[in-house]
Amino acid sequence: MKAVKVVGYHENLKMEEQEPEPKIEGALDVIVKIGAAGVCRTDIHILEGQWEAKSGVTLPYTIGHENAGWVHAIGDAVTNVKVGDKVILHPLNTCGLCKACRLGDDVHCSNGTFPGINVNGGYAEYLKTGARSCVKLDDSLEPADVAALADAGLTAYHAAAKAARVLRPGQVCVCIGAGGLGHIGIQVLKAISGATLVVVDQNPEALKLAKQLGADHTIEADKEGKFVEKVKELTGGQGAEAIIDFVCEGGSMKTGIQMLQRAGNYYIVGYGENLDIPTIDIISTEINFIGNLVGSYNDLQELMILAAQGKVKLHTAKYKLSEFQQAIDDLSNGKVRGRAILIP
Amino acid sequence: MKAVKVVGYHENLKMEEQEPEPKIEGALDVIVKIGAAGVCRTDIHILEGQWEAKSGVTLPYTIGHENAGWVHAIGDAVTNVKVGDKVILHPLNTCGLCKACRLGDDVHCSNGTFPGINVNGGYAEYLKTGARSCVKLDDSLEPADVAALADAGLTAYHAAAKAARVLRPGQVCVCIGAGGLGHIGIQVLKAISGATLVVVDQNPEALKLAKQLGADHTIEADKEGKFVEKVKELTGGQGAEAIIDFVCEGGSMKTGIQMLQRAGNYYIVGYGENLDIPTIDIISTEINFIGNLVGSYNDLQELMILAAQGKVKLHTAKYKLSEFQQAIDDLSNGKVRGRAILIP
Amino acid sequence: MKAVKVVGYHENLKMEEQEPEPKIEGALDVIVKIGAAGVCRTDIHILEGQWEAKSGVTLPYTIGHENAGWVHAIGDAVTNVKVGDKVILHPLNTCGLCKACRLGDDVHCSNGTFPGINVNGGYAEYLKTGARSCVKLDDSLEPADVAALADAGLTAYHAAAKAARVLRPGQVCVCIGAGGLGHIGIQVLKAISGATLVVVDQNPEALKLAKQLGADHTIEADKEGKFVEKVKELTGGQGAEAIIDFVCEGGSMKTGIQMLQRAGNYYIVGYGENLDIPTIDIISTEINFIGNLVGSYNDLQELMILAAQGKVKLHTAKYKLSEFQQAIDDLSNGKVRGRAILIP
Amino acid sequence: MKAVKVVGYHENLKMEEQEPEPKIEGALDVIVKIGAAGVCRTDIHILEGQWEAKSGVTLPYTIGHENAGWVHAIGDAVTNVKVGDKVILHPLNTCGLCKACRLGDDVHCSNGTFPGINVNGGYAEYLKTGARSCVKLDDSLEPADVAALADAGLTAYHAAAKAARVLRPGQVCVCIGAGGLGHIGIQVLKAISGATLVVVDQNPEALKLAKQLGADHTIEADKEGKFVEKVKELTGGQGAEAIIDFVCEGGSMKTGIQMLQRAGNYYIVGYGENLDIPTIDIISTEINFIGNLVGSYNDLQELMILAAQGKVKLHTAKYKLSEFQQAIDDLSNGKVRGRAILIP
Repeated sequence: MKAVKVVGYHENLKMEEQEPEPKIEGALDVIVKIGAAGVCRTDIHILEGQWEAKSGVTLPYTIGHENAGWVHAIGDAVTNVKVGDKVILHPLNTCGLCKACRLGDDVHCSNGTFPGINVNGGYAEYLKTGARSCVKLDDSLEPADVAALADAGLTAYHAAAKAARVLRPGQVCVCIGAGGLGHIGIQVLKAISGATLVVVDQNPEALKLAKQLGADHTIEADKEGKFVEKVKELTGGQGAEAIIDFVCEGGSMKTGIQMLQRAGNYYIVGYGENLDIPTIDIISTEINFIGNLVGSYNDLQELMILAAQGKVKLHTAKYKLSEFQQAIDDLSNGKVRGRAILIP
Repeated sequence: MKAVKVVGYHENLKMEEQEPEPKIEGALDVIVKIGAAGVCRTDIHILEGQWEAKSGVTLPYTIGHENAGWVHAIGDAVTNVKVGDKVILHPLNTCGLCKACRLGDDVHCSNGTFPGINVNGGYAEYLKTGARSCVKLDDSLEPADVAALADAGLTAYHAAAKAARVLRPGQVCVCIGAGGLGHIGIQVLKAISGATLVVVDQNPEALKLAKQLGADHTIEADKEGKFVEKVKELTGGQGAEAIIDFVCEGGSMKTGIQMLQRAGNYYIVGYGENLDIPTIDIISTEINFIGNLVGSYNDLQELMILAAQGKVKLHTAKYKLSEFQQAIDDLSNGKVRGRAILIP
Repeated sequence: MKAVKVVGYHENLKMEEQEPEPKIEGALDVIVKIGAAGVCRTDIHILEGQWEAKSGVTLPYTIGHENAGWVHAIGDAVTNVKVGDKVILHPLNTCGLCKACRLGDDVHCSNGTFPGINVNGGYAEYLKTGARSCVKLDDSLEPADVAALADAGLTAYHAAAKAARVLRPGQVCVCIGAGGLGHIGIQVLKAISGATLVVVDQNPEALKLAKQLGADHTIEADKEGKFVEKVKELTGGQGAEAIIDFVCEGGSMKTGIQMLQRAGNYYIVGYGENLDIPTIDIISTEINFIGNLVGSYNDLQELMILAAQGKVKLHTAKYKLSEFQQAIDDLSNGKVRGRAILIP
Repeated sequence: MKAVKVVGYHENLKMEEQEPEPKIEGALDVIVKIGAAGVCRTDIHILEGQWEAKSGVTLPYTIGHENAGWVHAIGDAVTNVKVGDKVILHPLNTCGLCKACRLGDDVHCSNGTFPGINVNGGYAEYLKTGARSCVKLDDSLEPADVAALADAGLTAYHAAAKAARVLRPGQVCVCIGAGGLGHIGIQVLKAISGATLVVVDQNPEALKLAKQLGADHTIEADKEGKFVEKVKELTGGQGAEAIIDFVCEGGSMKTGIQMLQRAGNYYIVGYGENLDIPTIDIISTEINFIGNLVGSYNDLQELMILAAQGKVKLHTAKYKLSEFQQAIDDLSNGKVRGRAILIP
């Protein structure tokens, strides 16, 4: 059994023996034979040491937090999956007993672990997790097709679904950013809502893809900010009922807020810059700012259904597990089209 | 000016002069030049005297409650439409001041009139209504295309949109009946939700249309009730999260309830039979029965947006206003494909 | 260790040794030293054999499904309670992994057990349950004070809280029945909503208690049905926005529906008679019928908070565990004021 | 007829003849004989010229935007009030026809006027407004008791009711500021929710009042910020599910956010400072910032019901209309206990 580990910050990852071999110890433990692990920009940030203090993980450890595969072994109390089942793993392994878990809002679990961040993850042949992270996959889906939806895709789904719940036909939702998260969000919104979808991005290629995925209008984010006026025109001068900002850096919020209608919702998904706005501007227009983290277990189930129905698709570039360095390098150098995936 | 009037119950309609001519009297009055009026089964029921006691209308009067056309004149306080605007009319002309109206739930207005039922309607060249019933039409829509959506279509929209607000991807909605209302409901559900849509009907032709309109599964309602088992199979034995019953007669509810999941919602749209069920069966499964009337003004605006986007379409058979008798006869004899429309 | 068991239907309960002694076997197991067990009318129904087919339980077994006490032992994976904690037990011991559990709607768990109904219950010194049924009690509450809230009280809370979520100040909620469940519902509604509360009951004593508990209006349910008119008067002729029917037998629904306003909600809590109503009456007024089962784990936590704050109180009559026969007899003969409780 | 007018900015108000006399011109016009007009800090800001550009009003004009009295005359289309009715006036006179009005969200009306701000207000014997601003008062309420609730009180109600809709028993709501708005908010929250209420203020007198009004906990806002830790302790280290910030200046938001739980809601009511927070802090905790403006017409109806039930009370200091200068001076000099009211 092999695993790719962080052996030191600012050092390259290293493939080593997976020791100790993951074993069933707790009654809700599940060991998954990894079918695919997504290579995420966060993995690069981990190597740069950005997560060292936050995760408190002891080196060496195995990274990889976007995982899918087959159930290899289960503990006594596991009833939702059986050996051989094809599964995608929710990024958090939650306790099921805290207040947040009991409400179905398990992302805010007080006692969860985060494989690939603070315990061993999925750049490996086997991963130990728990029953509560396992979502069974439809026969039509393969681990390699969906692994990369487990974290970034799930975040996009969560925000888009939250917006969709209050958007009615004829109301306008502006997506800022049609990149990794945004292009999932676009597909989700078209699949589950009747809202009119406007996509804003600086990159004409991203807008072309957005149009193919069903965006009703695409507008290039020019530096002079003329796109704000274009959105205003499309909305009878009033602005959009919802903004989903997948960027939140480089000034996206300042122009984003200008495109928001009175009583509208601004969904914050990306991060980088500050939200900085006079409270008088918030109360006089009665707008809301809605935070968004990764989706819940239920969200992941729903996203997998849309994937099985062909309503949400992802481009992937496949690498063997042993080619992990190439995958990381390609991602660092902007050479990956879609998402990079490691296949053990 | 001509109008087609009820001159007596159990008598034929009669085309007469429209006297008195509709005139602006109140500040919120609107006179609409009729572009198209839907011929509805309710019109036949009116002639049969079924509405005599309920409406209390004085004969002769002009029928027609599914109307669209162009604004011809407006009162002083009308600000939402101007002369020449192309409009569809909400079936109720509401007061705007009662509790229901203030909540946006204007269908339950305490003071409304119902043109074509209790005041003069739209089988005529001109119709007098109020500002609160006028929904402006998109340039791409013509009165003849949409008039018949004003009542039956609006009812279907209202129920489908109510169901869609709580349905998530992977949840199953069963539509019982793919006829006049059902085939609108199907289009609406596909446009605004990610739920899986199962359509049940006795008529294979209706199911064929349902499939074309996007139903995920269609099942023929056989007399032995085997369709219930088929729905159960499709839902892992649990039944559907939602049933929208556009029929509610001939035993549809008895089998419908068998297809409903624990904690599910049964939307009652059609009528005819009784809802008759032991309370123990309601509480032990914690199911709900949800009544549905025609949609609100806001619902009609949303439906017109879906129509303008080509997401909801209606087949129509056009007649000149003077051919009213032919239209009524054809409807009575089951000869109308889609909805019959009178064009003045 | 003693336990009171069903040894045969239509036979008296029998106190025997608790064999086998409850032991921790699963990782989420919890053994509770019983502090108090509610004596419920359902227990009498069990002895009458009414639950024989439904529960499928093998005799002899220990009854008692309203339990509170102290944690005596826990399995390895239990993190929400520790030995010595004072707890009330949710009537269901749920799996935590099925769809319903993941949504926080654990009452509809696909894999739960129901101690006292289909496995050994709480008329005993010790009870084996699971971590997911344990709600910690505030220091100020004792098991004997709250045990009887675990099932009947929880049902009343669930329905009242569901109604409260949509009731606004000035809206009227009619509670039909101010008995065991009703008098809890009244306290809950006054604690968490600003609605106006009208209580209808045949029993003047029950109405007196209702008034003490905060009912805004109490109306005696006379046989001629004049109370319907009184409710209509109180509501400007329109009827109430919500009816919570804790009775649902003896014709309560027929008069109840007459007191319901257009677009109102009828909460079904009691059972016995059929809901039998023409669908035309449902759709023309757009009313809803809402089923209610026992509350969720979260509901029980909330109810215990109201109890700790002194906002929900229960009268109890205490018996030693060995006096079980007396308690059952007193309940059968209508001699219990409030709820009977067994104290081991 | 007399009216108190702004005759120039940075000048004193002046009592003059009310010319032209208000007359019914439109069908929905209502003339109200003023019973009481609240004297608000905004009135002082108007005199300082702060609203000159924003309101665009032509001088001289009559100020006063918190008004109650008796209906004196009505237009032809007015059906919700009749001459002689005792009324409080919603601060906005809305159109009833725009999108926001049709949704019941009339505060965002596209065509409204704001008597006392951009048209003549209520420091006068008579005021002209419209049917849509009139809320009938219960017999038990007098204009002088409630006039000052029409704007500031309504804002507090709106925010508190919004929070109450998602707060459950045991959840904690922190009110920052127990002054003019805060002390109304406290009364509202206690009347309509079961949440635990913690009030934070710098002023011990305000906290004393808060406690009398039902606050569960009161905490003095010390300059070192120790109150933050106290709130954390009260909430098991997690912070509150909701913060209602009636201040939003002087650094209240910085400490407020520290007291907010993961997935919590921060209601912004006051204004003055900027909301300035890294987006990473918003998304990693998934918190929301909710803007709040004055309440809707429906909110005002609900608030008047709570007032009639004695659940919301206001201290007032009464002045004759001719003593307007004294009232303004007393308010400027901090000499008014509660709210100042002018009585014509």
